[in-house]
Amino acid sequence: MTRNISVEGLDQIPIERQRIELVERKCLGHPDSLADGIAESISRALSRSYMEECGTVLHHNTDQGEVVAGESIPKFGGGIITKPIYFLISGRATKVFDGVNIPADAIAVEAARGYIKKILPTLNMDRDVIVDCRMGMGSTDLRDVFRSCEGKAPRANDTSFGVGHAPFSEAESIVRGVSAFIDEKLRPRYPVIGQDCKIMCLRDGDTITLTIAMAFVDRYCSSITEYIEQKNVLTEQIAAVAKQFTNRKVNVAINTADDLESASVFLTVSGTSAEMGDDGSVGRGNRANGLITPNRPMSMEATSGKNPVNHIGKIYNLLATRIAQDCVAEVDGIEEMYVRILSQIGYPVDQPHVASAQVLTKPGTTIKSIKPDIEGIIDGWLEKTTTITEKVIKGELSTF
Amino acid sequence: MTRNISVEGLDQIPIERQRIELVERKCLGHPDSLADGIAESISRALSRSYMEECGTVLHHNTDQGEVVAGESIPKFGGGIITKPIYFLISGRATKVFDGVNIPADAIAVEAARGYIKKILPTLNMDRDVIVDCRMGMGSTDLRDVFRSCEGKAPRANDTSFGVGHAPFSEAESIVRGVSAFIDEKLRPRYPVIGQDCKIMCLRDGDTITLTIAMAFVDRYCSSITEYIEQKNVLTEQIAAVAKQFTNRKVNVAINTADDLESASVFLTVSGTSAEMGDDGSVGRGNRANGLITPNRPMSMEATSGKNPVNHIGKIYNLLATRIAQDCVAEVDGIEEMYVRILSQIGYPVDQPHVASAQVLTKPGTTIKSIKPDIEGIIDGWLEKTTTITEKVIKGELSTF
Amino acid sequence: MTRNISVEGLDQIPIERQRIELVERKCLGHPDSLADGIAESISRALSRSYMEECGTVLHHNTDQGEVVAGESIPKFGGGIITKPIYFLISGRATKVFDGVNIPADAIAVEAARGYIKKILPTLNMDRDVIVDCRMGMGSTDLRDVFRSCEGKAPRANDTSFGVGHAPFSEAESIVRGVSAFIDEKLRPRYPVIGQDCKIMCLRDGDTITLTIAMAFVDRYCSSITEYIEQKNVLTEQIAAVAKQFTNRKVNVAINTADDLESASVFLTVSGTSAEMGDDGSVGRGNRANGLITPNRPMSMEATSGKNPVNHIGKIYNLLATRIAQDCVAEVDGIEEMYVRILSQIGYPVDQPHVASAQVLTKPGTTIKSIKPDIEGIIDGWLEKTTTITEKVIKGELSTF
Amino acid sequence: MTRNISVEGLDQIPIERQRIELVERKCLGHPDSLADGIAESISRALSRSYMEECGTVLHHNTDQGEVVAGESIPKFGGGIITKPIYFLISGRATKVFDGVNIPADAIAVEAARGYIKKILPTLNMDRDVIVDCRMGMGSTDLRDVFRSCEGKAPRANDTSFGVGHAPFSEAESIVRGVSAFIDEKLRPRYPVIGQDCKIMCLRDGDTITLTIAMAFVDRYCSSITEYIEQKNVLTEQIAAVAKQFTNRKVNVAINTADDLESASVFLTVSGTSAEMGDDGSVGRGNRANGLITPNRPMSMEATSGKNPVNHIGKIYNLLATRIAQDCVAEVDGIEEMYVRILSQIGYPVDQPHVASAQVLTKPGTTIKSIKPDIEGIIDGWLEKTTTITEKVIKGELSTF
Repeated sequence: MTRNISVEGLDQIPIERQRIELVERKCLGHPDSLADGIAESISRALSRSYMEECGTVLHHNTDQGEVVAGESIPKFGGGIITKPIYFLISGRATKVFDGVNIPADAIAVEAARGYIKKILPTLNMDRDVIVDCRMGMGSTDLRDVFRSCEGKAPRANDTSFGVGHAPFSEAESIVRGVSAFIDEKLRPRYPVIGQDCKIMCLRDGDTITLTIAMAFVDRYCSSITEYIEQKNVLTEQIAAVAKQFTNRKVNVAINTADDLESASVFLTVSGTSAEMGDDGSVGRGNRANGLITPNRPMSMEATSGKNPVNHIGKIYNLLATRIAQDCVAEVDGIEEMYVRILSQIGYPVDQPHVASAQVLTKPGTTIKSIKPDIEGIIDGWLEKTTTITEKVIKGELSTF
Repeated sequence: MTRNISVEGLDQIPIERQRIELVERKCLGHPDSLADGIAESISRALSRSYMEECGTVLHHNTDQGEVVAGESIPKFGGGIITKPIYFLISGRATKVFDGVNIPADAIAVEAARGYIKKILPTLNMDRDVIVDCRMGMGSTDLRDVFRSCEGKAPRANDTSFGVGHAPFSEAESIVRGVSAFIDEKLRPRYPVIGQDCKIMCLRDGDTITLTIAMAFVDRYCSSITEYIEQKNVLTEQIAAVAKQFTNRKVNVAINTADDLESASVFLTVSGTSAEMGDDGSVGRGNRANGLITPNRPMSMEATSGKNPVNHIGKIYNLLATRIAQDCVAEVDGIEEMYVRILSQIGYPVDQPHVASAQVLTKPGTTIKSIKPDIEGIIDGWLEKTTTITEKVIKGELSTF
Repeated sequence: MTRNISVEGLDQIPIERQRIELVERKCLGHPDSLADGIAESISRALSRSYMEECGTVLHHNTDQGEVVAGESIPKFGGGIITKPIYFLISGRATKVFDGVNIPADAIAVEAARGYIKKILPTLNMDRDVIVDCRMGMGSTDLRDVFRSCEGKAPRANDTSFGVGHAPFSEAESIVRGVSAFIDEKLRPRYPVIGQDCKIMCLRDGDTITLTIAMAFVDRYCSSITEYIEQKNVLTEQIAAVAKQFTNRKVNVAINTADDLESASVFLTVSGTSAEMGDDGSVGRGNRANGLITPNRPMSMEATSGKNPVNHIGKIYNLLATRIAQDCVAEVDGIEEMYVRILSQIGYPVDQPHVASAQVLTKPGTTIKSIKPDIEGIIDGWLEKTTTITEKVIKGELSTF
Repeated sequence: MTRNISVEGLDQIPIERQRIELVERKCLGHPDSLADGIAESISRALSRSYMEECGTVLHHNTDQGEVVAGESIPKFGGGIITKPIYFLISGRATKVFDGVNIPADAIAVEAARGYIKKILPTLNMDRDVIVDCRMGMGSTDLRDVFRSCEGKAPRANDTSFGVGHAPFSEAESIVRGVSAFIDEKLRPRYPVIGQDCKIMCLRDGDTITLTIAMAFVDRYCSSITEYIEQKNVLTEQIAAVAKQFTNRKVNVAINTADDLESASVFLTVSGTSAEMGDDGSVGRGNRANGLITPNRPMSMEATSGKNPVNHIGKIYNLLATRIAQDCVAEVDGIEEMYVRILSQIGYPVDQPHVASAQVLTKPGTTIKSIKPDIEGIIDGWLEKTTTITEKVIKGELSTF
């Protein structure tokens, strides 16, 4: 059956020439990202368990859950968490299937605790953390839809869509690059950097301002003087990295709300604001490409925690992003590209209602000349939609 | 002090001429909208109480919370809810201020229960509903920022932004129009229509397909036969209304996942899928203009539940939408207009880092000719930013 | 089958001649009694529902649950509850039986809220109260035992025992009498009397000291002066009633921990200390006869909330008390009597391992002369054990 | 100040000559004992922390809390826990004192998890267990009473009493002895023995029947055949130990409700029925002497979790037991002895309203002859009441 693929030219000002561009990323320890990460961990653990026990991934959607902030008293040199952070697992999962019991609640709690332990090693898991679980079972209808899809392409759980774009703009590349630099290079050397960083990038014409809210870990910072020194060092290093991505002017500012005189600064015990100030929810942070990009089309669907088999809000967002990236990598002449894939509930996921690509070509390239290549890539990915499922379960695709 | 206002022309294909357009709305009884509505009710109730007790709105952010689905056994003629729906209130609020105690937890529970009772009169509030509360207190830093703003324009709580656009496209108008029609006209006549409707509109060229997931209330539907009849009648009526907004071809389909033969249909006891299948969270549904519009710039910020004084994610989204609407209403020659307002943490909310308007003019209108008028409207709204606060507290502005 | 009934003489100092006697009662609004009352309400509601839906009372034990105190700011003339009281329903119940779904969770929540509303009309049920539910399902084993008993006498759920005694001593009569007087006569006239009273009676030789901790309802008390007046009036009235039960000297003191000078008194918003200071649990307060009597044999089993069909901890405590009362009423010459009934798990409840009566006879009466009558009464009650079940379900027998 | 001490003779049939005697013990892994042990662990951890941070034990009462059973699927050879056991910590504690913050919630969670880990090493703490916390703060009044007692003997928190007796009867000794034997000797050799054992001892004349409900750990039992073998071996060994305490006839039966044919036996994954069937609460199990003894006077007060400084329900129960034991050990001629200590709220704990001893003397001993010695021991213990506090904090006194 032929797929409904639409490729059309786009006539708009390229992102790099728009005056204002905003890009944001909530790093792994941000409360919203914690919620996303936990939700996705649970979905992966359930998927693996379903595969082992039943040979197929069963219905579940754990794209819910709440991080309720604790209370803490940070102090230079090391403070205390006085009230544990509370994590509520909700969503739903199949708990019995064809006579086999799957300990979904126990799996979920274990996955959540394991993830928290990995991301926030500063926390005392027996003291600072409460993981609660109120996970239910899916409605019969949804489960029926799900079971019928064994053997061939699963049927879409909903009429919904996914979006993706490529390539990243300079601002987007900077945010991803700085985020990776902090995680991979900077924190190993400066353990004072908490996991909870929010990177906000504003490009105003040719001036790029990077505003970073970075939780400092109090045990690695002895005084306000050291805090200031550390902040200065980190600002410099981050600025240096950011400049590698652009010829534009780059300003970097960390924790601009600090009041240094009163020593009222972004100091934490654990490196996440979830210990005190901020709650978090699944689906409220980064999109499937790891960014929040109000200048770009975005999907409101939470990607994390949804089942990776037939949940459009997950698969199509990941797929659209991947398609756009591949097209840009493989086809010459694409300045910008936006992919939207729209499902129809009950139809196979490899047969979307429409897969639509909007392409802004580079000077000298016509949309007509590259259309077949793009269509081919789209069709190829739709053909192997289920590989997305596999990659997700293996943890090869990040969802936030 | 002069404000940083930027108005620039936009060169892109107008929405109505793009091939694919998607618009979605989750109506009041959808789990995500329930979460939004409860969050906003709590914020309003707290704001009123703070005004009464302390003369000013104190720090709070109740833009969190989770709806955990119950369990039910719907049946033609009337079924039962077997496990109550669980609502978790989280977020944070000021509980003591200058020696005055504000019963924030009690206020929150009361506001939440009052809202649920109003939106879902089908529920037995003493049997089908659990409202729990784990609301904390804000971090000292944030509260400090908040207190310092008394007297003049409050200071932005965060470096963040709001977005808005006008006018509505046909698809957008249809979704809003159909939603209003269902709530104001149709449900009063057909109580079988649950509050939980999700309206998905796909415009593919000149064909508009409206797919509505509509929870039927079982006590008002005696059989599968009556269900089919009702569905047909409602489909017809909605189609008629939708057609008033457009000359394009309109298709309407309700509950496309129904399997009529096995009578596996979208039947509920209470009119919301929160009774069984679906959880909900604040900020996961409609944006501040009541819609989800992946073809338009969107903000990921939850508008509902945030404090209406200095929370950029709330005020600037509402403000940007209002500015765009006013410009389109008052200035001739605007085809489409996008407004983005960017704050800087710690600065007065009436002095954003930049308020940026992108305008697609109608043929014959130059951006230059209308720029001063637009700037004036923007500047005027920024001057009176705090009126947004008042309107929100009075309930005159919807946030989702 | 003959029942194993043992009646033996008892040779001990009668209670009235022991030097020290202690008797205590926690009235209906005491946190522990609230927990008991809620537990029992739930069991009754479930029993009725099981009877209606399945024709028999199904397995359940709701003799669990926790009252977690809220927070309040009482004030003469009327204060506020700032944080709702949290009630956790736990225990277990049958939710599906032979294909019939029983909405046990919804029934439990409704019963609990209904009971709270009745006992504490001062509470705003939509603001001051959170009723949460984590009720599970019983283990298969227990349910099996339970199902097999249809038709004849149910089989004991456990190897356990019940105890009861009669007649009441003076101290016991005073406590019951004063409790009833407060509830029936005094509170209707003095609404300032909260439902949470704890009556402690110490008889030291021939001096009886009644110490009452009585929650005052702040809205009915305008000042410390009025508080003192009310306390004096109530002390007098209670003393007068207490004296009707005895010729001994009676002292009455209300709220002895009050510090009148600093106006630090037992003032509450709602009339229960659960609003602020005190948590409560099922089975921690009064025994089945409504009293705590450390001079008497007592059972540690919670009577409230247990299923009234085969749960020994409930049936045998009620039965033992009733048997003792009947013997004293019908048989002359009994000074004091203690009944203990011991079950054996899996055996019919009307065939206890042993039903043992210890009788202190009045001068001139031999144990031998009254033994047959007592045995007859015991045997008669065992024969009609199931009438206890019926009375409990109808609410004719109080359990605390 | 002279203390009010009363020593009187008791004229009753000694326990060993009463026909029926019942004694029960819920071992460490029984749900009620788990609740007790957690409550007491929390109190100890808080006390230690208060001492370190503030130099004195501050107000707290954690004698509350609920164990809500999980769900499991035991299987010979090893099954799974499908739904974690949920532990709710409630009660109250001082969280701020003279400007010092005590992380009471974090301390409580850590103590609870630590205790569970120690008692139930079969549980996977990251998968099978949820520890939640809703601990509040004490009422101002109570805290005031508490603070005023620094320096001298603390003031009683309540008008309440404690009771104790000595020596243990044969049945009591057997139960304690068998319990110790199982924990210290048997389980190390037979890991199949779960921590959840309930030992019920019925002495009917000279026949002692020991009925033990013992959770078997499924991973250490490969089949129903092995289960039967193990049961037989354990029954034999326990009988041998029990017989060391008595010349009476002893019968031992383990898990009498087992249905061996259908293999419906007391098999568990973790060794506690809290994994599936049974909830537990603080204060519902053993009294301060580790037993439930309906033939003896008992206090209804939960001993575990109460603050060890001024909470009568804790101190006086421990004290009364200790006094009785010391008297029996040091004074010749005591057949049985019952001690009751009654406080009056607000008075120093070393000045009870009355400390009353009832003594059944051995033939040849007059109460008069031993009264002075007994009074001396009582007075001595009251003088050093606070040593009870210290012993409790150090963990030298068991409370259940």
